[in-house]
Amino acid sequence: MYMKIEFWSDVICPYCGLMEHRLKRALERFPHAAHVRVVHRSIQLHPDLPRTGVTQRRLFDLAGMPRATGERTLRAIETAAHAEGLTPYHALDRTLGPTDLAHQLLAYATEQGRGDEAWSAIFRAHFGQARNLWTANEVLDFAAEIGLDRAEAEQALRSRRFLAQVTDDQREAERLGSRGAPFLVLDRTYAIPGAVDTDDLLAAITRAWREKNADPVPLTALADEDGICAPDGCAVPGDA
Amino acid sequence: MYMKIEFWSDVICPYCGLMEHRLKRALERFPHAAHVRVVHRSIQLHPDLPRTGVTQRRLFDLAGMPRATGERTLRAIETAAHAEGLTPYHALDRTLGPTDLAHQLLAYATEQGRGDEAWSAIFRAHFGQARNLWTANEVLDFAAEIGLDRAEAEQALRSRRFLAQVTDDQREAERLGSRGAPFLVLDRTYAIPGAVDTDDLLAAITRAWREKNADPVPLTALADEDGICAPDGCAVPGDA
Repeated sequence: MYMKIEFWSDVICPYCGLMEHRLKRALERFPHAAHVRVVHRSIQLHPDLPRTGVTQRRLFDLAGMPRATGERTLRAIETAAHAEGLTPYHALDRTLGPTDLAHQLLAYATEQGRGDEAWSAIFRAHFGQARNLWTANEVLDFAAEIGLDRAEAEQALRSRRFLAQVTDDQREAERLGSRGAPFLVLDRTYAIPGAVDTDDLLAAITRAWREKNADPVPLTALADEDGICAPDGCAVPGDA
Repeated sequence: MYMKIEFWSDVICPYCGLMEHRLKRALERFPHAAHVRVVHRSIQLHPDLPRTGVTQRRLFDLAGMPRATGERTLRAIETAAHAEGLTPYHALDRTLGPTDLAHQLLAYATEQGRGDEAWSAIFRAHFGQARNLWTANEVLDFAAEIGLDRAEAEQALRSRRFLAQVTDDQREAERLGSRGAPFLVLDRTYAIPGAVDTDDLLAAITRAWREKNADPVPLTALADEDGICAPDGCAVPGDA
């Protein structure tokens, strides 16, 4: 019995860093966590920002949002993050940029079996230290710091071999109904579109697990049960 | 857009080696193959055989199957395999054994990013060369031959860290309705229980792909769409 949790997020999305933390906490309390596989997927909220970055306050202006409104929202997220031990959590006093390279680096880290760790670390770097991770150099410095092979990571970015996957991730989220990040999908059956607290997240995971295991999804057979080997031998198609 | 093909099989199952070959051929002809992920899963058809192995003919006797019937079935599989380029294909003249260690080795290879290759190679070793792969030494010799680190692989077997996964795989197949191997599941929606030819397999994959992409599975939302960040900013739960 398995459960797959797909977690779409963006490096610069303050609710995403918070949900990543809550997902870890929820799984610590989930008795079947050893059978849960978390798959991180990519969403880019601001692909068109300049690589030099734009401050969050300037971004409010660009989005036509009154600074007071934007600040109130982000301070509320910071307060929630602090209450859960994420201190500091720079949702407001930071610079945002395009995350295409960061996502490709994270896909490379995942291929190396280090995805979970790399996602946690990149949220800590961005929200904990207000780090910029928009240029290849910034991303590769981060890669080296978390123990990835810098030359290999550079090759992964240069070859763009993870670009299609990163782009596909976003298209897939949209197809599944996402209108932003974070976006969690449990076993392709349940969606959690946006941040919820750890208790609610654990309740959702528990519900999805129970329903899955109580009532298996009936599969549609696309072929007869022929040409099959069982403990008592193999059967050839057409045999009675 | 992704598609996951789960392929349950056993190393000693002659239809499985054939289907592994056909799946590769079908994907070569499938235009979206780059977006298909094949996940190999484990089924053990004869976990109770002695590690020294038992010949296929002796196994007919043990199963109470007339040798002529069993031989006819397996010769038919060999003929099909030969016609598709798998020459030789020893479905009949071979020794079978318990595959728990082989499956754990394959799980280790998968963790190393070498799963696909290792599964192909183990079918070639068993059916192409009638190799025995039932003891730790036999399995580790095979591991070294395909370029895996023998000491690490030995540690993986000794620690049994893949044992639960191998056992879970089998339980999961049964839960999904499998009564033997091979058992293919497309995106947890369609089942192909048993061997089909490459054209039928490609048709099934194409159908599953089209239906998935034409008609996305509606997800059940387990939370309001609150606490979400979109390109125009983040929204706090409770905001209008």
